[in-house]
Amino acid sequence: MSEQKKSVYKPRPVSGFPEWLPEVRIVEQQWFDHIRRVFEAYGFCSIETPSVEELDVIAAKGEVDKEIYVLERLHRDENDKEARLALHFDQTVPLARYVAQHFNDLTFPFKRYQMQRVWRGERPQAGRFREFYQCDIDVIGVDSLPLHFDAEMPAIMYEVMRGLPGMEGQDFQIQLSNRKILIGALQSLGVDGEERIVAATRAIDKLEKIGREAVAKELAASGLSQEAVSRILKMVEIRTGNPEAIRAIKDIFPGDFPYLDEGIAELCEVLQYLQHLPEGAIVADLAIVRGLDYYTGTVYETRFTGDGSFGSICSGGRYEDLATQYINKKLPGVGISIGFSRLFSYLHEKGALPVGRKSPAHVLVAVPSEERRGAAAATAHALRGRGFNVELYHAAQKLQKQLAYAEKKGIPYVWFPPFEEGQAHEVKCLATRAQAKAEPETWNPAKEELDAVA
Amino acid sequence: MSEQKKSVYKPRPVSGFPEWLPEVRIVEQQWFDHIRRVFEAYGFCSIETPSVEELDVIAAKGEVDKEIYVLERLHRDENDKEARLALHFDQTVPLARYVAQHFNDLTFPFKRYQMQRVWRGERPQAGRFREFYQCDIDVIGVDSLPLHFDAEMPAIMYEVMRGLPGMEGQDFQIQLSNRKILIGALQSLGVDGEERIVAATRAIDKLEKIGREAVAKELAASGLSQEAVSRILKMVEIRTGNPEAIRAIKDIFPGDFPYLDEGIAELCEVLQYLQHLPEGAIVADLAIVRGLDYYTGTVYETRFTGDGSFGSICSGGRYEDLATQYINKKLPGVGISIGFSRLFSYLHEKGALPVGRKSPAHVLVAVPSEERRGAAAATAHALRGRGFNVELYHAAQKLQKQLAYAEKKGIPYVWFPPFEEGQAHEVKCLATRAQAKAEPETWNPAKEELDAVA
Repeated sequence: MSEQKKSVYKPRPVSGFPEWLPEVRIVEQQWFDHIRRVFEAYGFCSIETPSVEELDVIAAKGEVDKEIYVLERLHRDENDKEARLALHFDQTVPLARYVAQHFNDLTFPFKRYQMQRVWRGERPQAGRFREFYQCDIDVIGVDSLPLHFDAEMPAIMYEVMRGLPGMEGQDFQIQLSNRKILIGALQSLGVDGEERIVAATRAIDKLEKIGREAVAKELAASGLSQEAVSRILKMVEIRTGNPEAIRAIKDIFPGDFPYLDEGIAELCEVLQYLQHLPEGAIVADLAIVRGLDYYTGTVYETRFTGDGSFGSICSGGRYEDLATQYINKKLPGVGISIGFSRLFSYLHEKGALPVGRKSPAHVLVAVPSEERRGAAAATAHALRGRGFNVELYHAAQKLQKQLAYAEKKGIPYVWFPPFEEGQAHEVKCLATRAQAKAEPETWNPAKEELDAVA
Repeated sequence: MSEQKKSVYKPRPVSGFPEWLPEVRIVEQQWFDHIRRVFEAYGFCSIETPSVEELDVIAAKGEVDKEIYVLERLHRDENDKEARLALHFDQTVPLARYVAQHFNDLTFPFKRYQMQRVWRGERPQAGRFREFYQCDIDVIGVDSLPLHFDAEMPAIMYEVMRGLPGMEGQDFQIQLSNRKILIGALQSLGVDGEERIVAATRAIDKLEKIGREAVAKELAASGLSQEAVSRILKMVEIRTGNPEAIRAIKDIFPGDFPYLDEGIAELCEVLQYLQHLPEGAIVADLAIVRGLDYYTGTVYETRFTGDGSFGSICSGGRYEDLATQYINKKLPGVGISIGFSRLFSYLHEKGALPVGRKSPAHVLVAVPSEERRGAAAATAHALRGRGFNVELYHAAQKLQKQLAYAEKKGIPYVWFPPFEEGQAHEVKCLATRAQAKAEPETWNPAKEELDAVA
């Protein structure tokens, strides 16, 4: 090997593209495993779509903007007539395209989950991800879809979030509403036409940020009477898990308003399905607006009760038509999505994640001497056969050094094969420092200790 | 909702970007789960890198060619001074960059696995993937790395491939060699200079494709005597799992050739470590050449014994310097990689994959009537609490229709909650058609039946 000095290009992190050390990645894997376990417990199947869609497919769904990354071959041929491809920026466009394309091969209601990276071609900015994971569930029906699915979505997400390692100490709340109620209430007050409704809902959307007084002013400016403003504010300040309190909205807006009544009936039914959950886990919050053109009924948001600055952890809603751009079928659905990477990264920065082990190994098998490496390897093999994750130490170094290696990597047990044929094996638990004789064929440590960090 | 006819953009598959139906995706997940289980059983930790690297990082490693996809924001600002980003085309450049960047936070030998998508910006072509999964393991040392890792790599991959659902009926063989032997043997015959060695190894690389006679001709054309050609051919036709047969190479090339001798000693030691595996699982094949500038010692390839046309399933080798472009450290390593998507897709096309279930659900809980939906939901909840994956049927339709739905999705059991309070639950196994009374709290089906497809 020549010893010439080479020039070194020192790599640096790419802004917006997160990357974790092994000890953090292990927690990230626990998150994915847990989320998948819950989604599958409810019978959702997994799909994965390519990282790209054709630009024309995205354009058909009407969302081509500058947040999209387009792929170019580095040396593109002049006469290249290929369709342009773009990285997907969410999992909704790919789901719609997938369902339309494979319609005849799917069973409906189609319950799918999807945990993939998505990309946003934004300018680099602190705290803004340009590549991140989203975890979505959706249920798609043909022509119609029962309302009880609107309750299943947040119930699943509650179970997901309650079980994420690191979320134990975090208080959060899933909030839901039904867009028909707010729009129906505005219509009942004579706010007509899309433009006026959009202006009013925009104002209400800012309730948490700018406060009651400022919203009242904006609503008045959009043409509502003082009395109308106070009725609307009375409604959007409702926070309740109780269906009766939703029915009482009719007391604020009496009269025959079918769209409003439909929304109230739907929200009551959804809350009724959620009564088995702990109080305060999922509550109706009539100020929730969400996207103005996609969702048509139930809408969800999720917030840390202590920290409003984070925004929504997990959100979604009910839509009328998933894929009308790609197929002549009416496909109503309801879905909810966690911004996985943003939440994970937030808890990591707070020091809330249980980061510790750098290795999946339960046991480090020590190598007593180079002559005994074969015997140590056989021991490691026997332990693997019993389902343990086992690293065989790489060299016949001093046992103190081998122990220190296990400690550094957070491997909970060190196994000492005999120094001579016929002697006993011993195993040391690094958490308790206890060392005892053991046999590879019968050793039976406590599950908690195996998963513990020394 | 307006009923106006919309124009429909019919989506089509994007060439080179595979996508699976749910029943195939379930098998793909089983593959990833199995591979991860084996990698972790040997103490490898997971890392994931971003999908992109800076073009300058790739260029430093010297591999910028037109197979790279570069990202462009759809509406790029004129005065945009950002570094150009490219999708990674393998997991070696990202690994090298990762190890250099996080050097002080890693524990060495660094044993990592990585299962991610990689991208090749090739022109669309039948059977050529432009996006696919690779599953890599590497062990990286600082300054040196023990040779026994060269044996651990193929042993792990053998265990991986033997356990992949759908590989049961496929005969394959992992083949290994040591580049020092071939190069040392050529040097011993007076073939000197890189150019002549490259020409000779290129010829030998074609042995399987063009046959003995044609290779002999090429070797002769490159300046070897008839006798030298026949000695080289005698060596490269060696196929053996026996270290003694490798030592016998010295009979063909007697004399003092340190580089050749080193290669022979290394290959013998590696084969010695592999003696516990079934005969023929991993054999030395002296005709293996692999990449000419990256690998420096042990090299691996893996082939279907029945079908040479597939090429190598899984390959890799030992290298001197992982990241010399990014850090002033000598980081020798050894690694091996499966081309996951190509193998998966090949077995799928052959009909070898156990494709059946369209749902992860073990049980479909039927809904006897809308009034009993709450009771059915409670039953589903109880079964989930015991670890079963459970779908609650979506409507109180005829039981025949609910059964047909379970059958269509490949859900093995249908659970019938009582039609009236106080009556017994019953559960039907779709494979055996047996139906029996059961309680959600105690039901205990056979594991095999739970995973079976009706």
